[in-house]
Amino acid sequence: MSERMDAKLWVLGGTALLPGRVLPDAAIGITGGKISHITTRSQAQIPAGARKIDAVGCLVMPGLINGHTHTGMSLLRGIGDDLPLMAWLNERIFPLERKHASKEFSYWGTMLACAEMIRSGTTTFNDMYFFEDECARASDEAGMRMVAGQSLVETSDVDGSGKNLDATFDHFFESIEQYKLVTGTLAPHSIYSVSKENWKWMIGYAETNKKGIHFHLSEVMSEMDESKQKYGKTPTQVLAELGLWEQRVTVAHAVCVTPEDIAILGKHRVGVSHNPESNMKLGTLVAPIQELRKAGARVAIGTDSTASNNNLDLLQEADFAAKLQAFKYGAGAIKVEEIFQMLTAEGAEAVGLGEVTGSLEVGKAADIIAVDITGPHAVPMYNPYSHLVYSASGRDVKHSVINGAIVMEDRNLMTLDEQEIVREAAAWAKRLTQSVS
Amino acid sequence: MSERMDAKLWVLGGTALLPGRVLPDAAIGITGGKISHITTRSQAQIPAGARKIDAVGCLVMPGLINGHTHTGMSLLRGIGDDLPLMAWLNERIFPLERKHASKEFSYWGTMLACAEMIRSGTTTFNDMYFFEDECARASDEAGMRMVAGQSLVETSDVDGSGKNLDATFDHFFESIEQYKLVTGTLAPHSIYSVSKENWKWMIGYAETNKKGIHFHLSEVMSEMDESKQKYGKTPTQVLAELGLWEQRVTVAHAVCVTPEDIAILGKHRVGVSHNPESNMKLGTLVAPIQELRKAGARVAIGTDSTASNNNLDLLQEADFAAKLQAFKYGAGAIKVEEIFQMLTAEGAEAVGLGEVTGSLEVGKAADIIAVDITGPHAVPMYNPYSHLVYSASGRDVKHSVINGAIVMEDRNLMTLDEQEIVREAAAWAKRLTQSVS
Repeated sequence: MSERMDAKLWVLGGTALLPGRVLPDAAIGITGGKISHITTRSQAQIPAGARKIDAVGCLVMPGLINGHTHTGMSLLRGIGDDLPLMAWLNERIFPLERKHASKEFSYWGTMLACAEMIRSGTTTFNDMYFFEDECARASDEAGMRMVAGQSLVETSDVDGSGKNLDATFDHFFESIEQYKLVTGTLAPHSIYSVSKENWKWMIGYAETNKKGIHFHLSEVMSEMDESKQKYGKTPTQVLAELGLWEQRVTVAHAVCVTPEDIAILGKHRVGVSHNPESNMKLGTLVAPIQELRKAGARVAIGTDSTASNNNLDLLQEADFAAKLQAFKYGAGAIKVEEIFQMLTAEGAEAVGLGEVTGSLEVGKAADIIAVDITGPHAVPMYNPYSHLVYSASGRDVKHSVINGAIVMEDRNLMTLDEQEIVREAAAWAKRLTQSVS
Repeated sequence: MSERMDAKLWVLGGTALLPGRVLPDAAIGITGGKISHITTRSQAQIPAGARKIDAVGCLVMPGLINGHTHTGMSLLRGIGDDLPLMAWLNERIFPLERKHASKEFSYWGTMLACAEMIRSGTTTFNDMYFFEDECARASDEAGMRMVAGQSLVETSDVDGSGKNLDATFDHFFESIEQYKLVTGTLAPHSIYSVSKENWKWMIGYAETNKKGIHFHLSEVMSEMDESKQKYGKTPTQVLAELGLWEQRVTVAHAVCVTPEDIAILGKHRVGVSHNPESNMKLGTLVAPIQELRKAGARVAIGTDSTASNNNLDLLQEADFAAKLQAFKYGAGAIKVEEIFQMLTAEGAEAVGLGEVTGSLEVGKAADIIAVDITGPHAVPMYNPYSHLVYSASGRDVKHSVINGAIVMEDRNLMTLDEQEIVREAAAWAKRLTQSVS
């Protein structure tokens, strides 16, 4: 090989999980934010002065994609444990948000979440919250890749988004343009918290401005029952009538869906974020993710927020996802290799970034993590995908690179002042505690 | 306070989780392997030259109790993923064990497991495997507290235990007497793998020699169906006729139990190990742990083995336990404080060591862990029990003391040569791979 390898950043010596194959002792070169070379260390011609990341003893893989979260509410971690969904929302979360939500609350929530997400291997997250421009600002500071969804919750319109939708969303999309790794979406909360009229507005706006839509679909049976009573149809079918599924859509949950719903979601290749820990904790149901995938939908794995999980560790979420399918549909219902796809390439497709990230391929963004496999819980390792899903945790992530920039090296955060973030979060917690107890 | 505090080892500065109360800035003194003082740093009179463990920024709590595991099979981590229980046992696990099980296999399996367990906060484990005296030897080297169960699996008698039961078990109990922190039990595998005659022998031996019995009860519906066909009764009821429940018994699983079974297990205050990850992964059912507890049973949380989990992280297991109950019985079905009890004091009772360990009280064994709470995933922390169950992982455990000896300090293992263990496990994996692929 006489190819000149002019990449200035290299991830060296790990076992790389490439599409369809495993490459030991890999050398991955990065140029201008993208993967420019994939080879082995013995084949690599690394220019003098290149920056090297030591990945010996690691699995090197695409950064993880969090399909659904609300990073702006991270300061509510653990609030309302042990309540079912509707009581949790109406009795705990919404009242606290009405009292405390603010630009600063969203900003510091996302800063805290970014620290936790980088530490556990997430490089891209599909977000939804109030004051989402502030969440985007935090993500930009952290150097993360983000799909930022500005919420509309009519029943709890804490940031006043609902007062003038055109102004709100024009301003939102304009204000986040400055952030290189942030894409914006519309985020109407759900069918039960946004009127049909405003759903029509969302669809029109998305169509005109070529924006995606991210929302909660069929998270709980009461949502299904209400929709049937009110409209005589399932939420998926009501929204089909409005033309929603012609747009680029990512839905969260989809745990209560009929075969007809699944066919609609599959036909339109909708992105679905599966959030097993949140679904289990709030006592809902199991999403039929294999049926959805067979029908054509793209499934990501998501953590939901720290208030219904209560962490943002996607490798732990993957463990729940695999076991929940086995539990509901029988052992073997899903393979570890499929879960890996959902965490990476398929997850990226589900959030609208399939062309950009999600796999180690030349030309894709350099969103790369190295997972340490030298600990006792990593041996024996007969199958690296099994290790990632069933044995590893986010705490094994050693290095992380996003868009070619090192955001964590040897467990040190490079873009964030973690101590300041933890201090700010603790100060917020003190203020919030008075409302909680 | 003028009390002389002559303890030579102190755990200082953490937030201690004591029975019924939380003590900030705690000072815990240890003398002769036991907790001798519980006070605050400002009240403590620490003798010059005392050894101090810095627990500032940590929750200080009783070491975790693993209610059911097979550490000797740790070298089979991840073997047979995605198979249902009976196929997993008969097609993968039993054939591999027939080929590879040996004294060395059990010893190195337990060495590996001890490294992983100490790293994730376990101080006591209730074990069951072939060549269990070798497992006990490894646990003794690690300095862990262990209930060692010598197995009998008639259908796969790889260590020849079944040839002469008297000789096998006399030898077993005699050979482990030398290990200070090891208690022995009889471990007949299950009702479907041990004949009624041998069950009678087990019960007789247990009664005569005052030994406990540890086995798999009602793990899967086929076990229930077979028992009903063969004996016209559930496994619990068949064993009741034999007088089993008059003995000191810990059962694993109990996922398929009738109301009559629950009444029997409750009446005899049987120990039950709940192993949610294994149950979900092998596609079985949810143990009715709240009904069992209400009836009088003592419930521990267990990881089962690395072949059906695939790690030994009890804090992660606690997360599964809490969410699986919420999922099956509704959010709020179990409280985080109850899960904490099952991980500690109630877990110790379930494995027959309730007098010895499981709580931070003067006179109890000094089995103490310190869990770091300075990371971004630990803030805000409105409730420390919620944090432990839903946000933390075993990787947050910073220090561990067992019976007054430091086994991990600042994430460094003090009793084990971790690199040697990982090397040995990797060498075994190479040999096993030929049988697996």
